[in-house]
Amino acid sequence: MTEKEKAGFQGMHGAFSDIAGRRYFDGNVLTVPYESFERMMEAVSRSNCTYAILPIENTVAGSIYQNYDLLGESGLAVVGEVSLRIKHNLLVTNQPPLDQQERIAILKKVGSHFKALEQCIRFFRDNPHIQQSVEFDTAGYAEVVAKQGTIYDGAIASKTAARLYRLHVLRENIEDNPNNITRFLVVGREKQLFGQKASIRFTLKHEPGSLSRAIAAFAREGLNLTKIESRPLIGSPFEYLFYLDFETGNDMTRTGVAIESLGMVADSLDILGYYDKGGISQED
Amino acid sequence: MTEKEKAGFQGMHGAFSDIAGRRYFDGNVLTVPYESFERMMEAVSRSNCTYAILPIENTVAGSIYQNYDLLGESGLAVVGEVSLRIKHNLLVTNQPPLDQQERIAILKKVGSHFKALEQCIRFFRDNPHIQQSVEFDTAGYAEVVAKQGTIYDGAIASKTAARLYRLHVLRENIEDNPNNITRFLVVGREKQLFGQKASIRFTLKHEPGSLSRAIAAFAREGLNLTKIESRPLIGSPFEYLFYLDFETGNDMTRTGVAIESLGMVADSLDILGYYDKGGISQED
Repeated sequence: MTEKEKAGFQGMHGAFSDIAGRRYFDGNVLTVPYESFERMMEAVSRSNCTYAILPIENTVAGSIYQNYDLLGESGLAVVGEVSLRIKHNLLVTNQPPLDQQERIAILKKVGSHFKALEQCIRFFRDNPHIQQSVEFDTAGYAEVVAKQGTIYDGAIASKTAARLYRLHVLRENIEDNPNNITRFLVVGREKQLFGQKASIRFTLKHEPGSLSRAIAAFAREGLNLTKIESRPLIGSPFEYLFYLDFETGNDMTRTGVAIESLGMVADSLDILGYYDKGGISQED
Repeated sequence: MTEKEKAGFQGMHGAFSDIAGRRYFDGNVLTVPYESFERMMEAVSRSNCTYAILPIENTVAGSIYQNYDLLGESGLAVVGEVSLRIKHNLLVTNQPPLDQQERIAILKKVGSHFKALEQCIRFFRDNPHIQQSVEFDTAGYAEVVAKQGTIYDGAIASKTAARLYRLHVLRENIEDNPNNITRFLVVGREKQLFGQKASIRFTLKHEPGSLSRAIAAFAREGLNLTKIESRPLIGSPFEYLFYLDFETGNDMTRTGVAIESLGMVADSLDILGYYDKGGISQED
Protein backbone atom coordinates (compact mmCIF):
# COMPACT_ATOMS: atom_id res chain seq x y z
CA MET A 1 0.00 0.00 0.00
CA THR A 2 1.47 3.36 -1.03
CA GLU A 3 1.32 6.28 1.30
CA LYS A 4 -1.29 8.91 0.51
CA GLU A 5 -0.20 12.34 -0.67
CA LYS A 6 -0.73 15.17 1.83
CA ALA A 7 -2.46 18.54 1.47
CA GLY A 8 -1.80 21.13 4.18
CA PHE A 9 -4.42 23.56 5.47
CA GLN A 10 -4.37 26.28 8.11
CA GLY A 11 -6.33 25.51 11.25
CA MET A 12 -7.60 22.31 12.80
CA HIS A 13 -9.56 19.44 11.26
CA GLY A 14 -13.06 20.69 10.48
CA ALA A 15 -11.76 24.14 9.34
CA PHE A 16 -13.28 25.41 6.10
CA SER A 17 -9.91 24.99 4.35
CA ASP A 18 -9.91 21.36 5.45
CA ILE A 19 -13.41 20.83 4.04
CA ALA A 20 -12.43 22.59 0.78
CA GLY A 21 -9.37 20.35 0.47
CA ARG A 22 -11.41 17.18 1.09
CA ARG A 23 -13.94 18.21 -1.55
CA TYR A 24 -11.19 19.03 -4.06
CA PHE A 25 -9.25 15.79 -3.61
CA ASP A 26 -12.36 13.70 -2.99
CA GLY A 27 -10.71 11.64 -0.26
CA ASN A 28 -7.62 10.69 -2.29
CA VAL A 29 -5.25 12.94 -0.37
CA LEU A 30 -4.72 13.25 3.38
CA THR A 31 -5.44 16.75 4.74
CA VAL A 32 -2.90 17.90 7.34
CA PRO A 33 -3.41 20.81 9.79
CA TYR A 34 -0.90 23.68 10.10
CA GLU A 35 -0.83 26.39 12.71
CA SER A 36 -0.27 29.19 10.17
CA PHE A 37 -0.34 29.82 6.42
CA GLU A 38 3.42 30.49 6.56
CA ARG A 39 4.16 27.05 8.06
CA MET A 40 1.83 25.39 5.55
CA MET A 41 3.56 27.01 2.56
CA GLU A 42 7.01 26.14 4.01
CA ALA A 43 5.92 22.52 4.36
CA VAL A 44 5.15 22.36 0.63
CA SER A 45 8.43 24.10 -0.25
CA ARG A 46 10.32 21.53 1.86
CA SER A 47 8.36 18.61 0.39
CA ASN A 48 6.83 17.68 3.75
CA CYS A 49 3.49 18.17 2.05
CA THR A 50 2.52 17.84 -1.64
CA TYR A 51 -0.16 20.55 -1.69
CA ALA A 52 -1.44 23.52 0.28
CA ILE A 53 -5.04 24.77 0.39
CA LEU A 54 -4.82 28.57 0.32
CA PRO A 55 -7.95 30.76 0.70
CA ILE A 56 -7.50 33.63 -1.77
CA GLU A 57 -10.81 35.53 -1.98
CA ASN A 58 -14.25 35.68 -0.50
CA THR A 59 -17.44 37.03 -2.06
CA VAL A 60 -18.14 39.17 1.01
CA ALA A 61 -14.66 40.20 2.16
CA GLY A 62 -12.80 40.34 -1.18
CA SER A 63 -9.24 39.29 -1.98
CA ILE A 64 -6.89 38.08 0.75
CA TYR A 65 -3.75 40.08 -0.02
CA GLN A 66 -1.69 38.39 2.70
CA ASN A 67 -2.14 35.04 0.97
CA TYR A 68 -1.38 36.48 -2.47
CA ASP A 69 1.84 37.77 -0.91
CA LEU A 70 2.68 34.38 0.62
CA LEU A 71 2.06 32.70 -2.74
CA GLY A 72 4.23 35.22 -4.57
CA GLU A 73 7.11 34.95 -2.09
CA SER A 74 6.97 31.15 -1.96
CA GLY A 75 7.76 30.53 -5.62
CA LEU A 76 5.18 27.72 -5.48
CA ALA A 77 2.59 27.22 -8.23
CA VAL A 78 -1.20 27.22 -8.40
CA VAL A 79 -2.26 23.77 -9.60
CA GLY A 80 -6.00 23.88 -8.88
CA GLU A 81 -8.91 25.79 -7.38
CA VAL A 82 -12.03 25.01 -5.40
CA SER A 83 -14.75 27.25 -4.00
CA LEU A 84 -16.75 26.50 -0.87
CA ARG A 85 -20.06 27.91 0.28
CA ILE A 86 -19.27 29.05 3.86
CA LYS A 87 -22.00 28.26 6.38
CA HIS A 88 -21.44 29.23 10.01
CA ASN A 89 -23.10 27.36 12.85
CA LEU A 90 -23.45 28.05 16.55
CA LEU A 91 -22.07 25.02 18.38
CA VAL A 92 -22.58 24.27 22.07
CA THR A 93 -21.53 21.53 24.45
CA ASN A 94 -24.85 19.86 25.08
CA GLN A 95 -28.53 20.48 24.90
CA PRO A 96 -30.22 21.01 28.29
CA PRO A 97 -34.04 20.77 28.12
CA LEU A 98 -34.44 24.29 26.75
CA ASP A 99 -35.72 25.56 23.44
CA GLN A 100 -33.20 27.15 21.06
CA GLN A 101 -33.78 30.74 22.15
CA GLU A 102 -33.60 29.84 25.86
CA ARG A 103 -30.36 27.94 25.23
CA ILE A 104 -28.90 30.96 23.41
CA ALA A 105 -30.05 33.21 26.27
CA ILE A 106 -27.83 31.43 28.81
CA LEU A 107 -24.68 31.65 26.67
CA LYS A 108 -22.05 34.02 28.04
CA LYS A 109 -19.19 33.73 25.56
CA VAL A 110 -18.96 32.62 21.93
CA GLY A 111 -15.57 32.32 20.28
CA SER A 112 -14.29 31.86 16.75
CA HIS A 113 -11.74 33.14 14.24
CA PHE A 114 -12.31 36.85 13.58
CA LYS A 115 -13.20 36.19 9.95
CA ALA A 116 -16.11 34.05 11.17
CA LEU A 117 -17.16 36.58 13.85
CA GLU A 118 -17.10 39.31 11.22
CA GLN A 119 -19.47 37.28 9.05
CA CYS A 120 -22.01 36.78 11.86
CA ILE A 121 -22.59 40.39 12.94
CA ARG A 122 -26.39 40.07 12.97
CA PHE A 123 -26.30 37.14 15.40
CA PHE A 124 -24.28 39.14 17.93
CA ARG A 125 -26.36 42.26 17.36
CA ASP A 126 -29.48 40.21 18.17
CA ASN A 127 -27.79 38.69 21.23
CA PRO A 128 -25.87 41.51 22.89
CA HIS A 129 -25.55 39.51 26.13
CA ILE A 130 -22.95 37.26 24.48
CA GLN A 131 -19.29 38.21 24.62
CA GLN A 132 -17.47 37.68 21.31
CA SER A 133 -14.06 36.15 21.78
CA VAL A 134 -11.39 36.06 19.08
CA GLU A 135 -9.78 32.63 18.85
CA PHE A 136 -7.04 31.25 16.63
CA ASP A 137 -9.26 28.97 14.57
CA THR A 138 -12.94 28.08 14.04
CA ALA A 139 -12.61 24.32 14.39
CA GLY A 140 -9.79 24.63 16.92
CA TYR A 141 -12.00 26.60 19.25
CA ALA A 142 -14.85 24.12 18.73
CA GLU A 143 -12.47 21.51 20.14
CA VAL A 144 -11.63 23.76 23.10
CA VAL A 145 -15.34 24.20 23.89
CA ALA A 146 -15.90 20.46 23.55
CA LYS A 147 -13.04 19.66 25.95
CA GLN A 148 -13.15 22.52 28.44
CA GLY A 149 -16.36 24.45 27.80
CA THR A 150 -19.38 24.77 30.06
CA ILE A 151 -23.03 25.36 29.15
CA TYR A 152 -22.15 29.09 29.00
CA ASP A 153 -19.71 28.63 26.09
CA GLY A 154 -20.27 28.44 22.36
CA ALA A 155 -18.18 28.24 19.19
CA ILE A 156 -18.87 29.30 15.62
CA ALA A 157 -17.65 26.66 13.20
CA SER A 158 -18.59 24.16 10.50
CA LYS A 159 -20.92 21.21 10.92
CA THR A 160 -17.93 19.02 10.22
CA ALA A 161 -16.27 20.49 13.32
CA ALA A 162 -19.45 19.79 15.32
CA ARG A 163 -19.31 16.15 14.21
CA LEU A 164 -15.57 15.75 14.81
CA TYR A 165 -15.61 17.28 18.29
CA ARG A 166 -19.11 16.09 19.27
CA LEU A 167 -20.75 19.44 19.75
CA HIS A 168 -24.43 20.17 19.33
CA VAL A 169 -25.46 22.42 16.40
CA LEU A 170 -27.70 24.88 18.24
CA ARG A 171 -28.36 27.14 15.25
CA GLU A 172 -27.45 26.64 11.58
CA ASN A 173 -26.44 29.25 9.01
CA ILE A 174 -25.90 32.23 11.28
CA GLU A 175 -23.78 33.98 8.62
CA ASP A 176 -25.12 37.40 7.60
CA ASN A 177 -24.80 36.85 3.89
CA PRO A 178 -26.22 33.74 2.24
CA ASN A 179 -23.83 34.28 -0.68
CA ASN A 180 -20.70 33.76 1.37
CA ILE A 181 -18.31 31.79 -0.84
CA THR A 182 -14.56 31.42 -0.37
CA ARG A 183 -12.30 30.52 -3.28
CA PHE A 184 -9.23 28.43 -2.40
CA LEU A 185 -6.16 27.88 -4.56
CA VAL A 186 -4.53 24.48 -4.52
CA VAL A 187 -0.79 25.11 -4.41
CA GLY A 188 2.01 22.71 -5.35
CA ARG A 189 5.71 22.74 -6.13
CA GLU A 190 5.67 22.18 -9.88
CA LYS A 191 4.13 24.59 -12.37
CA GLN A 192 1.74 22.81 -14.71
CA LEU A 193 2.15 23.62 -18.40
CA PHE A 194 -1.55 23.42 -19.25
CA GLY A 195 -4.89 24.17 -17.70
CA GLN A 196 -8.30 25.70 -18.41
CA LYS A 197 -7.41 28.77 -16.33
CA ALA A 198 -4.36 30.84 -15.50
CA SER A 199 -3.54 33.17 -12.62
CA ILE A 200 -0.91 35.83 -13.19
CA ARG A 201 0.35 38.97 -11.49
CA PHE A 202 2.14 41.85 -13.13
CA THR A 203 3.21 45.43 -12.50
CA LEU A 204 2.57 48.36 -14.79
CA LYS A 205 3.71 51.95 -14.88
CA HIS A 206 0.99 54.17 -13.55
CA GLU A 207 0.18 56.05 -16.78
CA PRO A 208 -2.74 56.49 -19.17
CA GLY A 209 -3.38 53.47 -21.38
CA SER A 210 -0.98 51.07 -19.63
CA LEU A 211 -3.70 48.62 -18.52
CA SER A 212 -5.49 48.90 -21.85
CA ARG A 213 -2.26 47.95 -23.68
CA ALA A 214 -1.61 45.19 -21.14
CA ILE A 215 -4.92 43.40 -21.64
CA ALA A 216 -5.48 44.15 -25.34
CA ALA A 217 -3.83 40.89 -26.39
CA PHE A 218 -6.23 38.82 -24.26
CA ALA A 219 -9.15 40.34 -26.19
CA ARG A 220 -7.37 39.81 -29.53
CA GLU A 221 -6.73 36.15 -28.70
CA GLY A 222 -10.33 35.66 -27.52
CA LEU A 223 -9.37 34.81 -23.92
CA ASN A 224 -11.96 35.52 -21.24
CA LEU A 225 -10.82 37.39 -18.11
CA THR A 226 -12.41 36.05 -14.91
CA LYS A 227 -10.73 38.39 -12.41
CA ILE A 228 -8.81 41.63 -12.48
CA GLU A 229 -7.70 43.64 -9.51
CA SER A 230 -5.27 46.50 -9.06
CA ARG A 231 -3.36 46.88 -5.83
CA PRO A 232 -1.42 50.04 -5.09
CA LEU A 233 2.22 49.34 -4.27
CA ILE A 234 2.98 51.24 -1.08
CA GLY A 235 6.18 53.18 -1.54
CA SER A 236 5.88 52.92 -5.34
CA PRO A 237 3.23 55.52 -6.19
CA PHE A 238 4.04 55.34 -9.88
CA GLU A 239 3.60 51.61 -10.28
CA TYR A 240 0.62 49.33 -9.79
CA LEU A 241 0.38 45.60 -9.13
CA PHE A 242 -2.37 43.64 -10.86
CA TYR A 243 -3.86 40.21 -10.26
CA LEU A 244 -5.44 38.68 -13.36
CA ASP A 245 -7.17 35.33 -13.89
CA PHE A 246 -8.23 34.24 -17.35
CA GLU A 247 -9.58 31.24 -19.20
CA THR A 248 -7.07 29.75 -21.60
CA GLY A 249 -9.77 28.01 -23.65
CA ASN A 250 -7.25 25.13 -23.48
CA ASP A 251 -5.38 26.92 -26.25
CA MET A 252 -1.84 27.29 -24.99
CA THR A 253 -0.72 28.91 -28.26
CA ARG A 254 -3.15 31.82 -27.92
CA THR A 255 -2.37 31.93 -24.20
CA GLY A 256 1.35 32.13 -24.94
CA VAL A 257 0.82 34.97 -27.43
CA ALA A 258 -1.25 36.97 -24.92
CA ILE A 259 1.28 36.42 -22.11
CA GLU A 260 4.13 37.41 -24.40
CA SER A 261 2.36 40.63 -25.44
CA LEU A 262 1.67 41.45 -21.81
CA GLY A 263 5.33 40.80 -20.97
CA MET A 264 6.36 43.48 -23.51
CA VAL A 265 4.45 46.23 -21.66
CA ALA A 266 4.64 45.02 -18.03
CA ASP A 267 7.54 45.96 -15.74
CA SER A 268 7.33 42.51 -14.16
CA LEU A 269 5.21 39.43 -14.83
CA ASP A 270 4.73 36.22 -12.82
CA ILE A 271 2.68 33.26 -13.96
CA LEU A 272 1.26 31.90 -10.70
CA GLY A 273 -0.01 28.78 -12.44
CA TYR A 274 -2.15 27.01 -15.03
CA TYR A 275 -4.90 24.82 -13.62
CA ASP A 276 -8.33 23.41 -14.29
CA LYS A 277 -11.46 25.31 -13.42
CA GLY A 278 -13.02 24.31 -10.09
CA GLY A 279 -16.64 24.27 -9.01
CA ILE A 280 -18.47 25.53 -5.93
CA SER A 281 -18.68 22.83 -3.26
CA GLN A 282 -21.08 22.56 -0.34
CA GLU A 283 -20.12 21.29 3.08
CA ASP A 284 -23.10 18.96 3.30
CA MET B 1 -22.83 82.75 13.80
CA THR B 2 -23.93 80.14 11.27
CA GLU B 3 -24.19 76.54 12.30
CA LYS B 4 -21.36 74.29 11.15
CA GLU B 5 -22.04 71.60 8.54
CA LYS B 6 -21.94 68.03 9.85
CA ALA B 7 -20.03 64.97 8.65
CA GLY B 8 -21.16 61.58 9.97
CA PHE B 9 -18.79 58.74 10.78
CA GLN B 10 -19.31 55.23 12.13
CA GLY B 11 -18.11 54.68 15.69
CA MET B 12 -17.35 57.01 18.56
CA HIS B 13 -15.22 60.16 18.66
CA GLY B 14 -11.61 59.12 18.25
CA ALA B 15 -12.48 56.42 15.66
CA PHE B 16 -10.23 56.40 12.59
CA SER B 17 -13.15 57.59 10.43
CA ASP B 18 -13.54 60.55 12.78
CA ILE B 19 -9.84 61.39 12.48
CA ALA B 20 -10.00 61.05 8.67
CA GLY B 21 -13.02 63.37 8.58
CA ARG B 22 -11.31 65.98 10.76
CA ARG B 23 -8.22 65.89 8.55
CA TYR B 24 -10.30 66.20 5.38
CA PHE B 25 -12.44 69.11 6.57
CA ASP B 26 -9.63 70.68 8.61
CA GLY B 27 -11.92 71.62 11.49
CA ASN B 28 -14.51 73.41 9.32
CA VAL B 29 -17.14 70.72 9.69
CA LEU B 30 -18.47 69.06 12.83
CA THR B 31 -17.92 65.26 12.91
CA VAL B 32 -20.92 63.34 14.26
CA PRO B 33 -20.82 59.70 15.49
CA TYR B 34 -23.23 57.04 14.15
CA GLU B 35 -23.76 53.56 15.46
CA SER B 36 -23.64 51.93 12.02
CA PHE B 37 -22.72 52.75 8.43
CA GLU B 38 -26.38 52.24 7.47
CA ARG B 39 -27.57 54.90 9.95
CA MET B 40 -24.83 57.26 8.83
CA MET B 41 -25.80 56.97 5.15
CA GLU B 42 -29.50 57.38 6.02
CA ALA B 43 -28.68 60.56 7.94
CA VAL B 44 -27.12 62.07 4.80
CA SER B 45 -30.06 60.93 2.65
CA ARG B 46 -32.46 62.60 5.09
CA SER B 47 -30.38 65.77 5.28
CA ASN B 48 -29.63 65.31 8.98
CA CYS B 49 -25.99 65.36 8.01
CA THR B 50 -24.25 66.99 5.02
CA TYR B 51 -21.52 64.39 4.53
CA ALA B 52 -20.57 60.84 5.47
CA ILE B 53 -17.03 59.48 5.89
CA LEU B 54 -17.07 56.01 4.36
CA PRO B 55 -14.01 53.71 4.56
CA ILE B 56 -13.79 52.00 1.16
CA GLU B 57 -10.45 50.17 0.98
CA ASN B 58 -7.41 49.32 3.01
CA THR B 59 -3.91 48.53 1.78
CA VAL B 60 -3.78 45.36 3.89
CA ALA B 61 -7.38 44.11 3.78
CA GLY B 62 -8.46 45.33 0.32
CA SER B 63 -11.81 46.76 -0.78
CA ILE B 64 -14.74 46.95 1.62
CA TYR B 65 -17.55 45.53 -0.51
CA GLN B 66 -20.23 46.17 2.13
CA ASN B 67 -19.55 49.90 1.95
CA TYR B 68 -19.48 49.88 -1.86
CA ASP B 69 -22.91 48.24 -1.65
CA LEU B 70 -24.20 50.84 0.83
CA LEU B 71 -22.94 53.63 -1.42
CA GLY B 72 -24.55 52.06 -4.50
CA GLU B 73 -27.91 51.53 -2.79
CA SER B 74 -27.97 54.99 -1.21
CA GLY B 75 -27.96 56.96 -4.45
CA LEU B 76 -25.59 59.41 -2.71
CA ALA B 77 -22.49 60.80 -4.44
CA VAL B 78 -18.76 60.69 -3.77
CA VAL B 79 -17.60 64.28 -3.33
CA GLY B 80 -14.12 63.76 -1.90
CA GLU B 81 -11.52 61.30 -0.65
CA VAL B 82 -8.95 61.14 2.12
CA SER B 83 -6.49 58.41 3.13
CA LEU B 84 -5.27 57.86 6.67
CA ARG B 85 -2.23 55.96 7.89
CA ILE B 86 -3.73 53.60 10.51
CA LYS B 87 -1.66 53.26 13.68
CA HIS B 88 -2.97 51.05 16.47
CA ASN B 89 -2.06 51.63 20.11
CA LEU B 90 -2.50 49.58 23.24
CA LEU B 91 -4.36 51.77 25.73
CA VAL B 92 -4.71 51.04 29.45
CA THR B 93 -6.38 52.73 32.41
CA ASN B 94 -3.35 53.90 34.32
CA GLN B 95 0.29 53.20 34.71
CA PRO B 96 1.23 51.36 37.91
CA PRO B 97 4.97 51.48 38.72
CA LEU B 98 5.79 48.72 36.26
CA ASP B 99 7.81 48.73 33.08
CA GLN B 100 5.96 48.27 29.78
CA GLN B 101 6.44 44.52 29.56
CA GLU B 102 5.40 43.96 33.18
CA ARG B 103 2.31 46.11 32.65
CA ILE B 104 1.41 44.05 29.52
CA ALA B 105 2.00 40.84 31.50
CA ILE B 106 -0.79 41.63 33.98
CA LEU B 107 -3.38 42.39 31.27
CA LYS B 108 -6.13 39.79 31.03
CA LYS B 109 -8.39 41.12 28.29
CA VAL B 110 -7.86 43.53 25.39
CA GLY B 111 -10.81 44.56 23.25
CA SER B 112 -11.31 46.38 19.98
CA HIS B 113 -13.20 46.26 16.69
CA PHE B 114 -12.32 43.05 14.82
CA LYS B 115 -10.70 44.98 11.99
CA ALA B 116 -8.23 46.37 14.54
CA LEU B 117 -7.68 42.99 16.23
CA GLU B 118 -7.04 41.44 12.82
CA GLN B 119 -4.35 44.03 12.15
CA CYS B 120 -2.51 43.32 15.43
CA ILE B 121 -2.03 39.56 15.16
CA ARG B 122 1.64 39.68 16.16
CA PHE B 123 0.92 41.46 19.42
CA PHE B 124 -1.54 38.77 20.51
CA ARG B 125 0.75 35.99 19.27
CA ASP B 126 3.53 37.45 21.45
CA ASN B 127 1.13 37.77 24.41
CA PRO B 128 -0.98 34.62 24.43
CA HIS B 129 -2.07 35.28 28.03
CA ILE B 130 -4.34 38.10 26.81
CA GLN B 131 -7.90 37.32 25.78
CA GLN B 132 -8.97 39.14 22.59
CA SER B 133 -12.45 40.54 22.84
CA VAL B 134 -14.47 41.76 19.85
CA GLU B 135 -16.14 45.09 20.59
CA PHE B 136 -18.38 47.33 18.51
CA ASP B 137 -15.85 50.11 18.01
CA THR B 138 -12.19 50.96 18.68
CA ALA B 139 -12.75 54.34 20.34
CA GLY B 140 -16.04 53.23 21.89
CA TYR B 141 -14.30 50.42 23.72
CA ALA B 142 -11.54 52.79 24.81
CA GLU B 143 -14.27 54.79 26.54
CA VAL B 144 -15.64 51.62 28.17
CA VAL B 145 -12.18 50.75 29.53
CA ALA B 146 -11.72 54.32 30.76
CA LYS B 147 -15.06 54.28 32.59
CA GLN B 148 -15.39 50.69 33.78
CA GLY B 149 -12.05 48.99 33.18
CA THR B 150 -9.57 47.71 35.75
CA ILE B 151 -5.79 47.33 35.49
CA TYR B 152 -6.46 43.98 33.78
CA ASP B 153 -8.22 45.62 30.78
CA GLY B 154 -6.87 47.19 27.63
CA ALA B 155 -8.22 48.66 24.39
CA ILE B 156 -6.70 48.99 20.94
CA ALA B 157 -7.49 52.39 19.47
CA SER B 158 -6.08 55.66 18.18
CA LYS B 159 -4.00 58.14 20.19
CA THR B 160 -6.86 60.56 19.72
CA ALA B 161 -9.10 58.11 21.60
CA ALA B 162 -6.48 57.86 24.38
CA ARG B 163 -6.50 61.65 24.71
CA LEU B 164 -10.32 61.98 24.57
CA TYR B 165 -11.00 59.25 27.15
CA ARG B 166 -7.84 59.82 29.22
CA LEU B 167 -6.20 56.46 28.77
CA HIS B 168 -2.49 55.79 28.92
CA VAL B 169 -0.74 54.75 25.65
CA LEU B 170 1.13 51.69 26.88
CA ARG B 171 2.54 50.68 23.49
CA GLU B 172 2.43 52.55 20.18
CA ASN B 173 2.13 51.16 16.66
CA ILE B 174 1.23 47.57 17.47
CA GLU B 175 -0.18 47.06 13.95
CA ASP B 176 1.48 44.20 12.04
CA ASN B 177 1.96 46.11 8.83
CA PRO B 178 3.59 49.55 8.80
CA ASN B 179 1.91 50.26 5.45
CA ASN B 180 -1.61 50.11 6.82
CA ILE B 181 -3.53 52.87 5.03
CA THR B 182 -7.31 53.20 4.79
CA ARG B 183 -8.91 55.23 2.02
CA PHE B 184 -12.18 56.97 2.91
CA LEU B 185 -14.73 58.42 0.52
CA VAL B 186 -16.47 61.61 1.48
CA VAL B 187 -20.12 61.16 0.53
CA GLY B 188 -22.74 63.86 -0.02
CA ARG B 189 -26.19 64.28 -1.54
CA GLU B 190 -25.35 66.21 -4.70
CA LYS B 191 -23.22 64.83 -7.51
CA GLN B 192 -20.44 67.26 -8.43
CA LEU B 193 -20.02 67.92 -12.14
CA PHE B 194 -16.24 68.27 -12.03
CA GLY B 195 -13.28 66.84 -10.18
CA GLN B 196 -9.73 65.54 -10.66
CA LYS B 197 -10.93 61.97 -10.14
CA ALA B 198 -14.00 59.86 -10.82
CA SER B 199 -15.32 56.65 -9.29
CA ILE B 200 -17.66 54.53 -11.37
CA ARG B 201 -19.10 51.04 -11.29
CA PHE B 202 -20.37 49.05 -14.23
CA THR B 203 -21.40 45.55 -15.23
CA LEU B 204 -20.17 43.68 -18.28
CA LYS B 205 -21.10 40.45 -19.95
CA HIS B 206 -18.63 37.77 -19.02
CA GLU B 207 -17.08 37.21 -22.45
CA PRO B 208 -13.69 37.58 -24.15
CA GLY B 209 -12.72 41.18 -24.87
CA SER B 210 -15.53 42.84 -22.91
CA LEU B 211 -13.23 44.57 -20.41
CA SER B 212 -10.76 45.49 -23.11
CA ARG B 213 -13.56 47.20 -25.10
CA ALA B 214 -14.86 48.83 -21.92
CA ILE B 215 -11.59 50.52 -20.97
CA ALA B 216 -10.22 51.21 -24.48
CA ALA B 217 -11.75 54.69 -24.54
CA PHE B 218 -9.95 55.69 -21.32
CA ALA B 219 -6.62 54.88 -22.99
CA ARG B 220 -7.66 56.70 -26.19
CA GLU B 221 -8.61 59.80 -24.20
CA GLY B 222 -5.37 59.67 -22.18
CA LEU B 223 -7.14 59.14 -18.84
CA ASN B 224 -5.16 57.37 -16.13
CA LEU B 225 -6.86 54.50 -14.26
CA THR B 226 -6.06 54.47 -10.53
CA LYS B 227 -8.13 51.44 -9.51
CA ILE B 228 -9.85 48.56 -11.22
CA GLU B 229 -11.48 45.61 -9.54
CA SER B 230 -13.84 42.91 -10.74
CA ARG B 231 -16.37 41.43 -8.38
CA PRO B 232 -18.28 38.30 -9.31
CA LEU B 233 -22.05 38.80 -9.10
CA ILE B 234 -23.38 35.88 -7.12
CA GLY B 235 -26.31 34.36 -8.93
CA SER B 236 -25.21 36.02 -12.21
CA PRO B 237 -22.33 33.85 -13.36
CA PHE B 238 -22.32 35.43 -16.80
CA GLU B 239 -21.98 39.01 -15.68
CA TYR B 240 -19.29 40.84 -13.72
CA LEU B 241 -19.38 44.02 -11.66
CA PHE B 242 -16.40 46.36 -11.90
CA TYR B 243 -15.21 49.24 -9.74
CA LEU B 244 -13.08 51.76 -11.62
CA ASP B 245 -11.42 54.98 -10.46
CA PHE B 246 -9.68 57.25 -12.95
CA GLU B 247 -8.09 60.66 -13.19
CA THR B 248 -10.09 63.06 -15.34
CA GLY B 249 -7.08 65.32 -15.94
CA ASN B 250 -9.69 68.04 -15.25
CA ASP B 251 -10.85 67.48 -18.82
CA MET B 252 -14.56 66.82 -18.60
CA THR B 253 -14.87 66.59 -22.39
CA ARG B 254 -12.45 63.67 -22.64
CA THR B 255 -14.01 62.21 -19.51
CA GLY B 256 -17.48 62.45 -21.06
CA VAL B 257 -16.31 60.74 -24.26
CA ALA B 258 -14.74 57.87 -22.29
CA ILE B 259 -17.83 57.42 -20.10
CA GLU B 260 -20.09 57.48 -23.16
CA SER B 261 -17.99 54.83 -24.92
CA LEU B 262 -18.07 52.65 -21.80
CA GLY B 263 -21.84 53.11 -21.60
CA MET B 264 -22.18 51.63 -25.12
CA VAL B 265 -20.59 48.30 -24.08
CA ALA B 266 -21.64 48.07 -20.41
CA ASP B 267 -24.90 46.47 -19.31
CA SER B 268 -25.19 49.06 -16.55
CA LEU B 269 -23.12 52.07 -15.52
CA ASP B 270 -23.21 54.27 -12.40
CA ILE B 271 -21.10 57.34 -11.87
CA LEU B 272 -20.47 57.32 -8.13
CA GLY B 273 -18.99 60.81 -8.24
CA TYR B 274 -16.40 63.34 -9.44
CA TYR B 275 -14.14 64.72 -6.75
CA ASP B 276 -10.69 66.11 -6.09
CA LYS B 277 -7.73 63.88 -5.35
CA GLY B 278 -6.98 63.49 -1.62
CA GLY B 279 -3.68 62.96 0.13
CA ILE B 280 -2.51 60.56 2.83
CA SER B 281 -3.01 62.05 6.31
CA GLN B 282 -1.33 61.10 9.57
CA GLU B 283 -3.05 61.02 12.93
CA ASP B 284 -0.29 62.97 14.65
